[in-house]
Amino acid sequence: MPPGSLTILPVPGLPEIERAADLAAMIAEAVELFDDDVVVVTQKVVSKAEGRMVEIDPGDPAAKRRLAESEAVRVLRRRGDLVITETRHGYVCANSGIDLSNVAEGRAALLPEDPDRSARRIRDGLRARTGRRVAVIVSDTFGRAWRRGVVDVAIGCAGIRGIVDLRGSLDALGRQLVATEMCLVDEIAGAAELVMGKASGVPVAVVRGVDPAALGDGSVAGEVVRPCSEDLFR
Amino acid sequence: MPPGSLTILPVPGLPEIERAADLAAMIAEAVELFDDDVVVVTQKVVSKAEGRMVEIDPGDPAAKRRLAESEAVRVLRRRGDLVITETRHGYVCANSGIDLSNVAEGRAALLPEDPDRSARRIRDGLRARTGRRVAVIVSDTFGRAWRRGVVDVAIGCAGIRGIVDLRGSLDALGRQLVATEMCLVDEIAGAAELVMGKASGVPVAVVRGVDPAALGDGSVAGEVVRPCSEDLFR
Repeated sequence: MPPGSLTILPVPGLPEIERAADLAAMIAEAVELFDDDVVVVTQKVVSKAEGRMVEIDPGDPAAKRRLAESEAVRVLRRRGDLVITETRHGYVCANSGIDLSNVAEGRAALLPEDPDRSARRIRDGLRARTGRRVAVIVSDTFGRAWRRGVVDVAIGCAGIRGIVDLRGSLDALGRQLVATEMCLVDEIAGAAELVMGKASGVPVAVVRGVDPAALGDGSVAGEVVRPCSEDLFR
Repeated sequence: MPPGSLTILPVPGLPEIERAADLAAMIAEAVELFDDDVVVVTQKVVSKAEGRMVEIDPGDPAAKRRLAESEAVRVLRRRGDLVITETRHGYVCANSGIDLSNVAEGRAALLPEDPDRSARRIRDGLRARTGRRVAVIVSDTFGRAWRRGVVDVAIGCAGIRGIVDLRGSLDALGRQLVATEMCLVDEIAGAAELVMGKASGVPVAVVRGVDPAALGDGSVAGEVVRPCSEDLFR
């Protein structure tokens, strides 16, 4: 590979994830990892492994909305049975991130209680099994204000900084850059979706070649979630 | 490369871009392209090539804000000299996308007049020079509501669909997916930034391995820009 390039590998062949599944063991079995790899795991398999499934009445069209409201600390907008909420993690998303696709009929997947902790557990498990120093991102699919369509973003991370702060570094003309805080974990989560989306049932991808300067302690809760007090749009 | 994987290559070695520069010729010179490659070009070099540079008083701290307001159709929020605006293209972003980094002192780069058209021109130029059928995305760095940090998104595209609509397709359990309209062009723009950000002065990247189902006619203006009338947050 040319220097500076990046590779994204889908990790197919994982079994259906049940409660208490050891995701790290399954991933370590399915793919060879190297130091500085970033392993992206979709929220749904994390939620399944962590037993974050609840029952929902498939015959009640308002059941999802009521469940979403019960998972929210704040409802920002409503349109029909869609609610845009702020979750207790501080994410703003549709229906508190509750998901009915790729789960059994009559069941719904809630978000992990603490996705940064979920990411740390998987990272530690991968380290123990492979000896490799990898980063882990837990991703989910969110809509956005002002733009159509959804993209995958990071809801938890470990071993990688949520935001890489380029303030104070110089641009190509030697002038100081101002306020260029790149949210690399969101870009990586979206990049991973590009290989996951091609085939359904691929909930894990490996991103190889991420700038090592981005690797280190980080969290989505502490870095990426924007507190309401500094948000111009809440 | 394993099947289903994706590679992102930075394109270094482009000269400093001047007004009327032939970007397609420069890119074709700098990198070997293949059918179905997606070439991501940052807004700044497109704006420079299209002569979208204006003078700005470097001693006046409010000059950028005034220029941003003159480029806006609507000001959504203000904080000090920062304005969040809606541009005439329909993008919602900081300071109407006006950029003072990596441009000469006393100059500011405006957004291209029609970034979809810019993308089409570059795609057509690459086709003429290389014979390859490639897609082109013009990217820019935008902030987001609710989440800290900035990410690269698509402001124009050609040869690729802005949104890939998975509504009506089936999930892995054979149930119908609802409203999964992925904004692949934004995910690709962000992915490309991961290799551009590592070294300053790399304004172009090639993304190889994008799902061919995403390739075809598309535009950011027609697909990704959310009209104010359907936006819950304007």
